Amino acid sequence: MSAPAPAARVAPAAGLERLSFNQATAKHWPLEEVVAGCVAAGVPGIGLWREPVAEYGLDRAAALVRAAGLRVTSLCRGGFLTTPGWRDENRRAIEEAATLGTRELVLVSGGLPPGSRDVDGARRMVADAIADLAPEAAAAGVRLAIEPLHPMFCADRCVVATLGQALDIAERFAPEVVGVVVDTYHVWWDDTVYDQIARAGARIAAFQVADWVTPLPEGVLLGRGLPGEGTVELRRLREAVDASGYSGPVEVEVFHADLWSRPGPDILAATIDSYLTHVR
Amino acid sequence: MSAPAPAARVAPAAGLERLSFNQATAKHWPLEEVVAGCVAAGVPGIGLWREPVAEYGLDRAAALVRAAGLRVTSLCRGGFLTTPGWRDENRRAIEEAATLGTRELVLVSGGLPPGSRDVDGARRMVADAIADLAPEAAAAGVRLAIEPLHPMFCADRCVVATLGQALDIAERFAPEVVGVVVDTYHVWWDDTVYDQIARAGARIAAFQVADWVTPLPEGVLLGRGLPGEGTVELRRLREAVDASGYSGPVEVEVFHADLWSRPGPDILAATIDSYLTHVR
Repeated sequence: MSAPAPAARVAPAAGLERLSFNQATAKHWPLEEVVAGCVAAGVPGIGLWREPVAEYGLDRAAALVRAAGLRVTSLCRGGFLTTPGWRDENRRAIEEAATLGTRELVLVSGGLPPGSRDVDGARRMVADAIADLAPEAAAAGVRLAIEPLHPMFCADRCVVATLGQALDIAERFAPEVVGVVVDTYHVWWDDTVYDQIARAGARIAAFQVADWVTPLPEGVLLGRGLPGEGTVELRRLREAVDASGYSGPVEVEVFHADLWSRPGPDILAATIDSYLTHVR
Repeated sequence: MSAPAPAARVAPAAGLERLSFNQATAKHWPLEEVVAGCVAAGVPGIGLWREPVAEYGLDRAAALVRAAGLRVTSLCRGGFLTTPGWRDENRRAIEEAATLGTRELVLVSGGLPPGSRDVDGARRMVADAIADLAPEAAAAGVRLAIEPLHPMFCADRCVVATLGQALDIAERFAPEVVGVVVDTYHVWWDDTVYDQIARAGARIAAFQVADWVTPLPEGVLLGRGLPGEGTVELRRLREAVDASGYSGPVEVEVFHADLWSRPGPDILAATIDSYLTHVR
């Protein structure tokens, strides 16, 4: 049986040709409504997360976005490669990405193993795990997209703390098998970031956008701002990514408790507006 | 009139020859009691802060630590060089350091100017301001000790976010005029930190120790741990600093609301114990 023919792609609204709405920006908005909202607004791309996809049903979700004509720009997330069970978990994530029709599987490396202070050792574990997963990813047509997180997450979420470090790992593999994610929230502070973006070139698997807002909240996870709310030179970073040869989607991905408390359509409208004003 | 002869130096207790107690570790402990506590415990060094020193009286504070035989290992802090009035403020800080008998004036660079997103511009302001202040510091026998803060402070406190960046600025000047601070809390996550410590060598003006504890509290300022409470390889960093040629004081500087709520003598005892176990 051959795969069904793809539905017609969403016709992007003016200026939104590259915009992708990451579903975590509207965490409490049900997937069917997110998809319908994107289609209605002329947003051609969507970034998905494994947990809400699993809740909705993987195959159902794949059919839903396909029928809607949305491009799945990335799947968040695999990784946590310093945690027991990482191999099976990431094999499942690779399959899920393939099923959803996206090439880009975002990997957050994981932090220090419980009780460990050996950050070099944890970084070696991450590189070894990626080498282990790369053949399977290649076979599935999925790219492992290493996302450096801000160094404030180094201990508990992601020992890959800079774009340079992510590239040091990625460059051991073919660019279509292992790439990197450039997320403005995580990399803006780095005085080498523009050099590293130029170095990344064809390895840029995803470009994600969020703004840096202070003061940071407790736990520092849910303090991101919509474009324009913070201190990041978002347009400059977008232009640098473009100059490196990247012409793919621009995914807005913002986690903030206040934003999440708003109705989904409002969040999407605010995302579109801030993207047009501060990123495009 | 010649300066009074220095008092006899505190005889360090066994193992505490290099320990310095930063007064901000016991924020609410009055200066006279901190000084008496250090002397009684055989802690030979103390790190001072400008605000409590000013409250006690600069000359009185200088006389107090001198009479006690304590070495003032650093004065925190000058800097905030992106803020109006930085020049006068830092000239005062240089004089205060000289009066207190310490050579090391810790500089926290300052964040982005209000309303600005121009991080490169802010970094140029910092380098220019240090060039402006260097002659006065040299004349006073005070070293400007640039402290890179963790990148989570880049927007609002310190655009100098890595040891490499601090050295890029410091190396424009003589090592006895502009140095760097290595604070374990701020630099531990950096995969280049051991190379940068080796590069720093004689420019290491102060070595400060605190541990990284998660989850971070709101505002992320008061979440540090005593040595051993977190994830940092403190002894490895201390050994690297030593291997670079540094043989100066090891200053424990921890900010945490819970720690501050304890009686001063308990905080000092806990500091000594954690230093001996996890750093020395």
